[in-house]
Amino acid sequence: MRIDIITVLPELLESPLSHSIMQRAQDKGLLEVHLQNLREYGIGKHRQVDDYQYGGGAGMVMMLEPLVNCIEDLQSQRAYDEIIYMTPDGERLHQGLSNRLSLKENLMIICGHYKGIDERIREHLVTMEISIGDFVLSGGELPAAVLVDSIGRLLPGVLNDETSALLDSFQDNLLAPPVYTRPEEFRGWKVPDILKSGNFKKIEEWRMDKAVERTRARRPDLLEGEE
Amino acid sequence: MRIDIITVLPELLESPLSHSIMQRAQDKGLLEVHLQNLREYGIGKHRQVDDYQYGGGAGMVMMLEPLVNCIEDLQSQRAYDEIIYMTPDGERLHQGLSNRLSLKENLMIICGHYKGIDERIREHLVTMEISIGDFVLSGGELPAAVLVDSIGRLLPGVLNDETSALLDSFQDNLLAPPVYTRPEEFRGWKVPDILKSGNFKKIEEWRMDKAVERTRARRPDLLEGEE
Repeated sequence: MRIDIITVLPELLESPLSHSIMQRAQDKGLLEVHLQNLREYGIGKHRQVDDYQYGGGAGMVMMLEPLVNCIEDLQSQRAYDEIIYMTPDGERLHQGLSNRLSLKENLMIICGHYKGIDERIREHLVTMEISIGDFVLSGGELPAAVLVDSIGRLLPGVLNDETSALLDSFQDNLLAPPVYTRPEEFRGWKVPDILKSGNFKKIEEWRMDKAVERTRARRPDLLEGEE
Repeated sequence: MRIDIITVLPELLESPLSHSIMQRAQDKGLLEVHLQNLREYGIGKHRQVDDYQYGGGAGMVMMLEPLVNCIEDLQSQRAYDEIIYMTPDGERLHQGLSNRLSLKENLMIICGHYKGIDERIREHLVTMEISIGDFVLSGGELPAAVLVDSIGRLLPGVLNDETSALLDSFQDNLLAPPVYTRPEEFRGWKVPDILKSGNFKKIEEWRMDKAVERTRARRPDLLEGEE
């Protein structure tokens, strides 16, 4: 899979994409992430990428032409399955959406900045708008990193133990059960006996009970079959 | 404000915290972010921080003792308002929560990895669990960066134009209206005439109408006064 991230701050994304599982996915040739510096498509000798908004008001707007030029330059090189704009008013990212996107071949992700991008890009070029939640950030870079991480770890062969991703929260509409490791006791805080019993059938039952109990307490909506 | 982030991958967080608005907040002395490398509190000569889970199964668990030692070392130096664990089964981050946290003085954020942290840390030391959404990531580092960014930009003096943050999506339970910048026309795609009218009262009305219209179409739940 190939992902192109269009950004005015490529350097912000360097360390998240070059460590841990993201690095492993790229080292194994399973994922290519290309940071596209929008400023290279900027207008005039100052490589302008933003301008004042029509109608006045605080905050700059990302200009249409540099984005059009960047998007169309990339499209001239390969076909993209989706052109995604990270924006707080987009569709909420959830595991099902990450699963679906992990099956694509080429994705383009646009990181907004300032007050956002010129509306005409959203109307005419963007094919999907994704939000990671109801909060405002400095730009779309961290949301883009979040999206790439959630997709990248689902690519077959990226995780060491392929069963691992399937047991995560949300893959079965249940939150994960509690986990414990050594020591068995610390300040009187103990590991539940059942987990030390060696009875794997009972342990599985206990984990399922705890997963359901936690989901019921914290996220009853998940049990109603919502994605 | 001071934020300590406890992580096994401090290097992953370097670039997001040293650019753009996060850098500006720190340069101005309004925000201090300290990356605490959990491995420095690891057990034995290998500085172990994770171990197999009780009861068996794929995936390692972050050990209790290194976390206890790190948390208590920090607590011995200052009082913390919250000890936050980033986890997909925590309370969903939303703008109201970011607003509230931006009024605190000292926050501690624990980034989970592998299968998560030993449950006893959550029971006995963590005071708040926060999720950025229903999806699984490689670790809590990106969610921590998201949380710090959402809080950091709210600190008075961080944004150039203080009115700017107040006009963002969610601050008034409305999504932001569309924005436009030059050129006025591109491939027949035009800027709405009203924005070029110079009639600021009408422009404000148009923006409010568009904000309500977009919120009704995309997020009717926000209009019902939910946070």
